[in-house]
Amino acid sequence: MFKTIEWIDKGVRMIDQRVLPTREVYKTFKGYKEVAGAIKDMVIRGAPAIGVAGAMGIALGASKIDPKDFKSFNREFRKIVKHVAGARPTAVNLAWAARRMEAVFEKNRDLPTEEIKALLIAEARKMHDEDVLINKKLGTNGARLLKKNSTVLTHCNAGALATAGYGTALGVIRAAVEKGKNIHVLADETRPFLQGARLTAWELKKDNIDVTLIADNMAGHLMKEGLVDAVVVGADRIASNGDAANKIGTYTVAVLAKEHKIPFYVAAPTSTIDMEIKTGAEIPIEERGAREITHISGVRLAPTGIKIKNPVFDVTPAKYITAIITEKGVVKKPYRAGIKALFKK
Amino acid sequence: MFKTIEWIDKGVRMIDQRVLPTREVYKTFKGYKEVAGAIKDMVIRGAPAIGVAGAMGIALGASKIDPKDFKSFNREFRKIVKHVAGARPTAVNLAWAARRMEAVFEKNRDLPTEEIKALLIAEARKMHDEDVLINKKLGTNGARLLKKNSTVLTHCNAGALATAGYGTALGVIRAAVEKGKNIHVLADETRPFLQGARLTAWELKKDNIDVTLIADNMAGHLMKEGLVDAVVVGADRIASNGDAANKIGTYTVAVLAKEHKIPFYVAAPTSTIDMEIKTGAEIPIEERGAREITHISGVRLAPTGIKIKNPVFDVTPAKYITAIITEKGVVKKPYRAGIKALFKK
Repeated sequence: MFKTIEWIDKGVRMIDQRVLPTREVYKTFKGYKEVAGAIKDMVIRGAPAIGVAGAMGIALGASKIDPKDFKSFNREFRKIVKHVAGARPTAVNLAWAARRMEAVFEKNRDLPTEEIKALLIAEARKMHDEDVLINKKLGTNGARLLKKNSTVLTHCNAGALATAGYGTALGVIRAAVEKGKNIHVLADETRPFLQGARLTAWELKKDNIDVTLIADNMAGHLMKEGLVDAVVVGADRIASNGDAANKIGTYTVAVLAKEHKIPFYVAAPTSTIDMEIKTGAEIPIEERGAREITHISGVRLAPTGIKIKNPVFDVTPAKYITAIITEKGVVKKPYRAGIKALFKK
Repeated sequence: MFKTIEWIDKGVRMIDQRVLPTREVYKTFKGYKEVAGAIKDMVIRGAPAIGVAGAMGIALGASKIDPKDFKSFNREFRKIVKHVAGARPTAVNLAWAARRMEAVFEKNRDLPTEEIKALLIAEARKMHDEDVLINKKLGTNGARLLKKNSTVLTHCNAGALATAGYGTALGVIRAAVEKGKNIHVLADETRPFLQGARLTAWELKKDNIDVTLIADNMAGHLMKEGLVDAVVVGADRIASNGDAANKIGTYTVAVLAKEHKIPFYVAAPTSTIDMEIKTGAEIPIEERGAREITHISGVRLAPTGIKIKNPVFDVTPAKYITAIITEKGVVKKPYRAGIKALFKK
């Protein structure tokens, strides 16, 4: 099996998700700016994975500070955190990872700087390992919701490639398959970045999970034909009322699921939940460049000079979500109370 | 302006829609098998355009028959009609064009074969010119439904490139723009064949109509944000109850429009209506090859050996359609009666 992200002696090693599925290339990033660049350029993507990448980037940056005194160490550390946390705006996991690293820093500020550095590295590696365990728990919780011999539609890639391993939405599918449920996956190709075609199809095929690739606009037709039993997607940020930001197109799938009375599940670790915001309206939606729409692999698809829109995420209001699957349990409506209760566990 | 399809001395000339928008190449097809091949290979596409192409292909084939007697002329003619009419299954216009050509043949069977040939050519050219006039009428009828300063979403290409000229859905938009209504168009890119990105964006830009290109899966998000005022699409076949087959993804847009209370219009000439079928369930849905999904311009997007589905059309049930815009008038619910009345005009 591949490794999405790994701490190695020389730096942070990642599989380059931009060249999948045709090439399996690993890159090692040796400084925090390079890690932030990898997040921004989508070498790595997926909310939990960029949380781990952010933590590792911060640990890497901190480990290379050569401080005169604590004051200068502190100043440099804050600069690194700010830089890494700003790499992408929508996923809350990056901010969450930054806060965890800052908490380790604060708690140990009286120790020698070399010890603080070691603790930061240990925390980042721990977050990696925790993420895999969280996904496995989340997977087990969600697998119960899927029926035997069912067809599950997913959008984008909320898989091992979007996390430290195992996956969230694909973790639910993996856990169901491991339980002997015969699951067939329909993967939306997920324009413009084609995470479904390039990543979900690749990792499920590698895992021998039965997958069929479709264009995004086919989901409605297949639902109408009775060929979809459930939808499971990941999330980049969930508001305290259950509204969920995820890859652009997720909201469309949610509306289709409602129209066809198909359950629509969001699978995400509790670190994806942002209790600071009341509704999804407060989630910033990243816009990316025109070239993602107008070109594929350098091939021009659209006329020169054409105007485009490229919002990268959308927000699915909680009312469309049948359940939110987390490592601490499955939450159903009313979400505000259910989500609050999760954090008391 | 470009010409989608044209009868010239040497044969049938078409703009090659497969290489747009990067190249504007015209090809001349000199035999009926070549014309049928051009329809099958999507050199030309769009229900009204392939109707005209079918008629011209039949005329071209007939013109080249060197008959011993009427019996052999008749036999050859029927073979040609069958071959051309079978090029693509979903659009009814091809069958409609074949029937019109057969009617000319029948009506004039007592004339010398050379005269029959000339009449068949005249009929095909007439169908071309009629199609443009029909689209202009249809456009005028539909333009009334669009408000000033509104944003209209369209899917696929139901434009000048999909017809002999002017367009159906884009004809409605063109007519509204000509009336001084300030219309902004959102064009779905329309995977997998990218008719929106390649064709709609190209022809609207060429006509100086304000157009923004989006990925198919962005329509829901933009509707939720209040950025879409109306949807206008074409159709490949409309059943006598108003169910409309059109490019895959149209049904998804219709469901989204319903959810957001946005009017959803289907613009098509009455030749697209198939009174022989009671509902959309009787419309055959063409499936095309895997490569349209797995590759773009020869670039592989998905892992090798991946399973795909590639239904090329879907059926939007009449209940989702706010109105059907034809050259004979605008039909609203109940559709069965309204459509029947159209044919009495």
